[in-house]
Amino acid sequence: MALPIVSITRRETFSSCHRLHSKFLSDEENKKLYGKCNNPNGHGHNYVVLVTVKGPVDTQTGMVMNIHDLKQCMQVAIMDPLDHKNLDQDVPYFKTVVSTTENLAIFIWDQLQKVMDKPQLLHEVKILETEKNHVVYRGGSTYPRKKRDNSSLHPNNKYYNVSSDSD
Amino acid sequence: MALPIVSITRRETFSSCHRLHSKFLSDEENKKLYGKCNNPNGHGHNYVVLVTVKGPVDTQTGMVMNIHDLKQCMQVAIMDPLDHKNLDQDVPYFKTVVSTTENLAIFIWDQLQKVMDKPQLLHEVKILETEKNHVVYRGGSTYPRKKRDNSSLHPNNKYYNVSSDSD
Amino acid sequence: MALPIVSITRRETFSSCHRLHSKFLSDEENKKLYGKCNNPNGHGHNYVVLVTVKGPVDTQTGMVMNIHDLKQCMQVAIMDPLDHKNLDQDVPYFKTVVSTTENLAIFIWDQLQKVMDKPQLLHEVKILETEKNHVVYRGGSTYPRKKRDNSSLHPNNKYYNVSSDSD
Repeated sequence: MALPIVSITRRETFSSCHRLHSKFLSDEENKKLYGKCNNPNGHGHNYVVLVTVKGPVDTQTGMVMNIHDLKQCMQVAIMDPLDHKNLDQDVPYFKTVVSTTENLAIFIWDQLQKVMDKPQLLHEVKILETEKNHVVYRGGSTYPRKKRDNSSLHPNNKYYNVSSDSD
Repeated sequence: MALPIVSITRRETFSSCHRLHSKFLSDEENKKLYGKCNNPNGHGHNYVVLVTVKGPVDTQTGMVMNIHDLKQCMQVAIMDPLDHKNLDQDVPYFKTVVSTTENLAIFIWDQLQKVMDKPQLLHEVKILETEKNHVVYRGGSTYPRKKRDNSSLHPNNKYYNVSSDSD
Repeated sequence: MALPIVSITRRETFSSCHRLHSKFLSDEENKKLYGKCNNPNGHGHNYVVLVTVKGPVDTQTGMVMNIHDLKQCMQVAIMDPLDHKNLDQDVPYFKTVVSTTENLAIFIWDQLQKVMDKPQLLHEVKILETEKNHVVYRGGSTYPRKKRDNSSLHPNNKYYNVSSDSD
């Protein structure tokens, strides 16, 4: 029987401080590139994060995934490591990677994949940094990423690592 | 002449009550799966629904579809059967199908296809159940659904029934 | 090395007045088609516009594109020509094209392509005309548009001019 494919999204908010500063650039280049986001003593945001999973709707439960399970995954993968934290100092990943919203979305995607029972259902991570700026990551890359082999799991395998899947 | 393909979206709200309870599960399993949404006497939501149609922009009118016609379709397909109703008791479809937001989106999709002059333009049904949860359905399924033959009508036929089209 | 593909979006607002009136139609047909939007003395909106660029995340900067550069492009392509203007009388493009939100999105897309250093990164133009209506344009058309040759620039070239890319 054909099962309808639906996506469900859960929204949470977390508050973090950070500073945009790339180790690949000089102090002057950092200041020019990131402007006030390069302020030495940091700044903060109330980030809004929306996580989307997509998959077939179970005939018996009428669900793609129990939203309470998704909420729990987001607690472990996002809220625990990031909420009320200094991204650059409290999160090991950002010791070497500049904490732009782009990289934050990639970090959250990778974290979620680790804690989800069915990581192949993960479809999108959207972060609103402010009311005026947001980013979307759907796991795509210029070339296939080798970190995780989902080839046998992901229902949309053929689209999985192409940039057209990114939003 | 090449016509630009644009999507237009109309937003409405409707208020319904329902209870999540699957006939496939025991009372105990229902309570565990749906939690407070299984409350025997039901609960309610102010649902927000966004319907998107996508197609070529008419050169003379500058429109994909007259938004007033879309509004009228939404009145007949969504507002009339669902607004200020008990989903489980007033809507025959949900006598046998559990009224999760996933299934509600599928119901609305099917209803809209019945009343639209050009059902092949229907692109997306998005429902916000709360400010924190929403679902999206784009008509895709794990296998092609046989209910309706749009093969000769749909401009995006080749993408029509694949899950990658679902959001 | 595989670079993750991320999309970033910037939101701005502009206020314009206009009148929906097609030169291809009679006065009576115009009144019937556009309703109160055909009011002879015009009306206005606080438009919200969201522009999305999508591309690989630079390893050194952690950015797809500097959001300040995107903001600057939007100033030149959108705010300068449209904000606090009469679309039909102040914007030459709309002397011959009816100023529906669909056509406004197409105009903004074309304007942005002209001023962006990397127009191939432009992914989506979304306009909220009111809280209840919005449109999305992703550059797709029923047939490839010939106005601009990005074939050698666009990373998503194979998807560039197909309607499935439109939302």
